[in-house]
Amino acid sequence: MKFFHTADWHLGKLVQGVYMTEDQAYILDQFLEAIKLEKPDAVIIAGDLYDRAVPPTDAVQLLNQTLETIVIDLKTPVLAIAGNHDSPSRLNFGSKIMKSVGFHIVGEFSHPFEPVILNDEFGEVHFHLVPYTEPGKVRHVFLDDTIKSHDDAMKKIIDKIDDIKDEKARHVLVGHAFITHNGEEKENTSDSERPLSIGGAEHVNDSHLKDFHYVALGHLHQAHHSGIETIRYSGSPLKYSSSEANHKKGYLVVELNGEGEVTVEKRLLTPRRDLYIVEGYIAEIERHSHCEDYVFVRLLDESPILSPMERIRSVYPNAMHVERTGVKAPTLTDSESHGMNRMKLDDLSLFKAFYKEVKGLDATRETEQLFEKTLQKILEIEGER
Amino acid sequence: MKFFHTADWHLGKLVQGVYMTEDQAYILDQFLEAIKLEKPDAVIIAGDLYDRAVPPTDAVQLLNQTLETIVIDLKTPVLAIAGNHDSPSRLNFGSKIMKSVGFHIVGEFSHPFEPVILNDEFGEVHFHLVPYTEPGKVRHVFLDDTIKSHDDAMKKIIDKIDDIKDEKARHVLVGHAFITHNGEEKENTSDSERPLSIGGAEHVNDSHLKDFHYVALGHLHQAHHSGIETIRYSGSPLKYSSSEANHKKGYLVVELNGEGEVTVEKRLLTPRRDLYIVEGYIAEIERHSHCEDYVFVRLLDESPILSPMERIRSVYPNAMHVERTGVKAPTLTDSESHGMNRMKLDDLSLFKAFYKEVKGLDATRETEQLFEKTLQKILEIEGER
Repeated sequence: MKFFHTADWHLGKLVQGVYMTEDQAYILDQFLEAIKLEKPDAVIIAGDLYDRAVPPTDAVQLLNQTLETIVIDLKTPVLAIAGNHDSPSRLNFGSKIMKSVGFHIVGEFSHPFEPVILNDEFGEVHFHLVPYTEPGKVRHVFLDDTIKSHDDAMKKIIDKIDDIKDEKARHVLVGHAFITHNGEEKENTSDSERPLSIGGAEHVNDSHLKDFHYVALGHLHQAHHSGIETIRYSGSPLKYSSSEANHKKGYLVVELNGEGEVTVEKRLLTPRRDLYIVEGYIAEIERHSHCEDYVFVRLLDESPILSPMERIRSVYPNAMHVERTGVKAPTLTDSESHGMNRMKLDDLSLFKAFYKEVKGLDATRETEQLFEKTLQKILEIEGER
Repeated sequence: MKFFHTADWHLGKLVQGVYMTEDQAYILDQFLEAIKLEKPDAVIIAGDLYDRAVPPTDAVQLLNQTLETIVIDLKTPVLAIAGNHDSPSRLNFGSKIMKSVGFHIVGEFSHPFEPVILNDEFGEVHFHLVPYTEPGKVRHVFLDDTIKSHDDAMKKIIDKIDDIKDEKARHVLVGHAFITHNGEEKENTSDSERPLSIGGAEHVNDSHLKDFHYVALGHLHQAHHSGIETIRYSGSPLKYSSSEANHKKGYLVVELNGEGEVTVEKRLLTPRRDLYIVEGYIAEIERHSHCEDYVFVRLLDESPILSPMERIRSVYPNAMHVERTGVKAPTLTDSESHGMNRMKLDDLSLFKAFYKEVKGLDATRETEQLFEKTLQKILEIEGER
């Protein structure tokens, strides 16, 4: 049996105020092409189909068209779960009706479990679809007060799956969680993932999952295995933050043979516009050739630059962010330049330092007086309010 | 062929701040029972399934469960369209996938049309599902600048349906619009319907629809026919405003014979709590027996009543609104009691009149002084801001 494993589409996502829907449509088109060519037996989407509980309508339309194409036109079953960004009940709508046509989606966590069963020449493969769930919900469903963390919750869920596991079949778990190897955290997180819990109890030990023939995960946006090669994140199909600049985005092709052995291949997708970091001096960057990519620019210049974004966008019209890593406030000593110390400067000194930083010249006495007069006036007006 | 015609469920509706979801679940339960007993060949829901574009999640769950029961458990096809309260694209989600299982929903208006075809022993019945649509959208789809009003839009749509109409089949139109007989308006509107356009161009002449064997409409909450007996509103299954107090709520059972002749029967549903107007004096009303219904109370008392809602709710705990139709301000002359004149009174006179109305006594000099002092203080504080 061969299936595609993808996750974290985040349809409807805004990156730095830019809607990614067109980029998402572009990448999903390639994904559909790949399904058409390779004819997998199923497509797994391991959560975060949408970026938020109530996605914009064009994201709803994009997901609808994509799923219709896979399920109806390409006659390929889809196995999907809700992630922490999705609304369980909204994603659940129609799930029972769509099941019989080959679209299996589990939005809301519930028990008893019922795997989706697909067949190949070697027999049955059971897909266990576990949507993202708060530990409190699992505690409530099983009336088990010992469940406190995500780790406790996943352990309980796996125990319950074990109870119904048909030993003759092969088993695939589809989940959306923060899985780490024996509790050690590797550097696999990105800025575009929303923490699952505040205070650190979000990690789930991969040892709970080791008895499945394959575990298809969503949540972390970088493709990797947990440390156990059959427990994998496919990663998101697109870069959603500058911390993902060096990721290679795509999806996984998983082949499961009759013995339950797995081979995994990563296939890359080509984005409409890449997303990466450009570092350099403004004068250098202005000599780059015109480029539509989503760039995050780090300017090394130490001297003041007026309208840096405007200048950068003449070359990179879709630049997302400019940061000035080379800047030091020239009139301040090192200790003064520290934010906390700056706040201790009086208003006039602060103004003078700012003026010099921007204009490259000291403020004249006349300018200082104008500043003081204006500030005085503002403070008076504010006092009257 | 026998089908049920219903509309305007408005799941997720708030009436006077009260969520109607439990009442809606109660009434839909009866509706499901009726389907189980009478085994219609189809169920038509003519728009406004939800009360708003993004309904609360319990409304999504209620619709999901109801549709799953009808389609999966009772194996009865559902034919539904979006109304003006629904989000076309959100309601459209999964429509192509769910079609093959017997759930036919058209959220978004699009062309070419394709009727849903059901069969009985006499042949085919074609159901033409026309969701609520802005005239501008119809103008755009057909590139026809002459379409200005809802009437123009419906006429165009019907013309287009005529082009593909199979004359051997029987034809049912499902629509969500404000249909009137030859443009005359009868007293069929309620306060819980949202106008389709501001300025009056919302009416559609029923003569455009007369060539269908049956027209199943939604939008107006009172069950009635347009003046042509085959063009009908089923009305909403529940009362959603005090203007609907006298409506008989339910659904229609439509039988279509082999000649395309129609018989319509109205079936009533019993709400968990009725909704009506109670008129009387407070002392009378307090002697009523305890009642859980949603009442709108009109008090005839002329004298002041303290905490009238509290007193009413001791008998009618779910009272929704209290109005005092018998009140006259006792210390003011008739001309003074007019709102505009009241505004001309100085603050002290206004206070004295109010005091007398509430307490039934003249304010003492001491009370007046206290009022003036307090008012003075408030005005000073406001002046300082």
